[in-house]
Amino acid sequence: MPTTVFSTLDEFTNILAGMPNTNAKVTSEATARDAVLTKPPGALGRLEDIAIWYAGWRGEAAPQVTAPQALVFAGNHGVVAQGVSAFPAEVTAQMVMNFEQGGAAINQLCAVAGAKLTVHALDLDSPTQDFTVGAAMTEPELISALATGWNAVDSTADLLITGEMGIGNTTSAAAICAALYGGEGEDWVGRGTGVDDAGLAQKAEVVSRGIALHGDILAEPMQVLRCLGGRELAAIVGAIARARMERIPVILDGFICSAAAATLASAHDGALDHCLAGHVSAEAAHIRLLAELGKQPLLSLGMRLGEGSGAALAINIVKSALACHSNMATFDSAGVSGG
Amino acid sequence: MPTTVFSTLDEFTNILAGMPNTNAKVTSEATARDAVLTKPPGALGRLEDIAIWYAGWRGEAAPQVTAPQALVFAGNHGVVAQGVSAFPAEVTAQMVMNFEQGGAAINQLCAVAGAKLTVHALDLDSPTQDFTVGAAMTEPELISALATGWNAVDSTADLLITGEMGIGNTTSAAAICAALYGGEGEDWVGRGTGVDDAGLAQKAEVVSRGIALHGDILAEPMQVLRCLGGRELAAIVGAIARARMERIPVILDGFICSAAAATLASAHDGALDHCLAGHVSAEAAHIRLLAELGKQPLLSLGMRLGEGSGAALAINIVKSALACHSNMATFDSAGVSGG
Repeated sequence: MPTTVFSTLDEFTNILAGMPNTNAKVTSEATARDAVLTKPPGALGRLEDIAIWYAGWRGEAAPQVTAPQALVFAGNHGVVAQGVSAFPAEVTAQMVMNFEQGGAAINQLCAVAGAKLTVHALDLDSPTQDFTVGAAMTEPELISALATGWNAVDSTADLLITGEMGIGNTTSAAAICAALYGGEGEDWVGRGTGVDDAGLAQKAEVVSRGIALHGDILAEPMQVLRCLGGRELAAIVGAIARARMERIPVILDGFICSAAAATLASAHDGALDHCLAGHVSAEAAHIRLLAELGKQPLLSLGMRLGEGSGAALAINIVKSALACHSNMATFDSAGVSGG
Repeated sequence: MPTTVFSTLDEFTNILAGMPNTNAKVTSEATARDAVLTKPPGALGRLEDIAIWYAGWRGEAAPQVTAPQALVFAGNHGVVAQGVSAFPAEVTAQMVMNFEQGGAAINQLCAVAGAKLTVHALDLDSPTQDFTVGAAMTEPELISALATGWNAVDSTADLLITGEMGIGNTTSAAAICAALYGGEGEDWVGRGTGVDDAGLAQKAEVVSRGIALHGDILAEPMQVLRCLGGRELAAIVGAIARARMERIPVILDGFICSAAAATLASAHDGALDHCLAGHVSAEAAHIRLLAELGKQPLLSLGMRLGEGSGAALAINIVKSALACHSNMATFDSAGVSGG
């Protein structure tokens, strides 16, 4: 069984400094294989880049994707007291039950993608502190949430997606983005599950107030996560870090997942090199956040559900890329004339 | 067994005039179902539109996609004598063998998507006439190719993709677009399997010459297909028309497939209402062609292979849309509070 290998924030950030990187030799081998497959050079577009990238991370020139894992983390947010969501906070727990009973969108998407889904509710009865009043989490609370994510990763998985559920968490994600990249609340908030214009203005004001309250401590990305994040966001960070240690490529989901991941990218350069952006969400600031992360999304279908839904839909693209890369005939083996 | 129900071009166009339409009552039922599923309204973006659209065509408010069919048609083109391709014409037959042996990209993509693939080679030893010299096909040749496509559709399929293989066929597709929508050859040609700048200029000149040769007969869309098309393009037209008769939704592939389909759209208004655009190809004019067709692509991954590859990759999106639509819990059934 996997066990957490950190018990303080310093220990966690030390792990980041020692993370493995892609295998350059295998990347070269995969690039050479791609060049002789029965298709014009580059004709599979991004599928070819994905296959080569994936091969490098897995350390295998012609791998398959056979065991995708999907993790959904749920948390509650004290900041909902500020009236930032169109839905009441009890919906977080109700949706966890819906996930467990197989009735949510992510259940159907994982079934189609052949991904094994588990749901992890993090202390739903104890929402994080309202970040306009104080730090969302204490350091022990943050460590506990990071550990939940870290321990949830199955080391035998060969692709990971992380999703979230948490009424109020687009406000938390917007605050994280404003803290990491600058700008005002209004630059990073969106309609979330569907707030109206007044709700949107309220979210912007709440974000700006949170940023102002916490001040200089926000220069440290892991403190951004602690002060403005939520348990489910921290669990995503833990899971992405653990996946890196296990050389499991990750597909990021939407705005909230990407905001959580952004704290890791800011904490350690290249920390998201093993991650693809599964999609760009309709949540207004996601496209801007992906640009900050240097990630080009695989899908753009106007989705804004969270739960890992956009990432789950992108699993098939990665699976297809590797199926082509690893199973196609070569010009020589098929007796096809080259160009 | 399906049998062709036309033996002349007039009979074929008469069929188009009597094609079935989407079921408005079922579309309403599907829209109502979508509104009560456990997600914020519209949060699944285009997946919701796809599900409702698909339900209307299938005449069932909560259907599944369980039997996708993939058809690849192959043909040879006399216009290759004009030096318009980076690959020699014998590659068409070599790739048909590769499809039959399971070594091509489309084989892998269909395997991942769970689609049943069949390959139909159309008289590869008798290329169509060079369209800069005369009409590509006689009317009996066109009817025969349309019938091949028509008869290839499995009436028990619940989703269809059509692909093609034919050295020289991006030139044929560009000529079709110029004939249907105007413009010069240079407005519609692209690099195909990979021609250089000189090859690109040659393709443009060949297209313009073809358009000039055939003149006024090109006012009739089915004559555009006959004079400038190819057997595999005509087979695609036949298959798309048959799918409409059987109420089987279709995912269009790239530039060549879309150009073939465009002749149907020009021949009969709304003839592609049962079709989605699977992707936008890297072939330069595809995005312009999709705009003419009023279709927004599901994927944009820089692919330009043909074979049905982009459409095959999009099958999973349609399947996922219907899995969500038909299998998700409702707010009431899951006990989740509405917004």
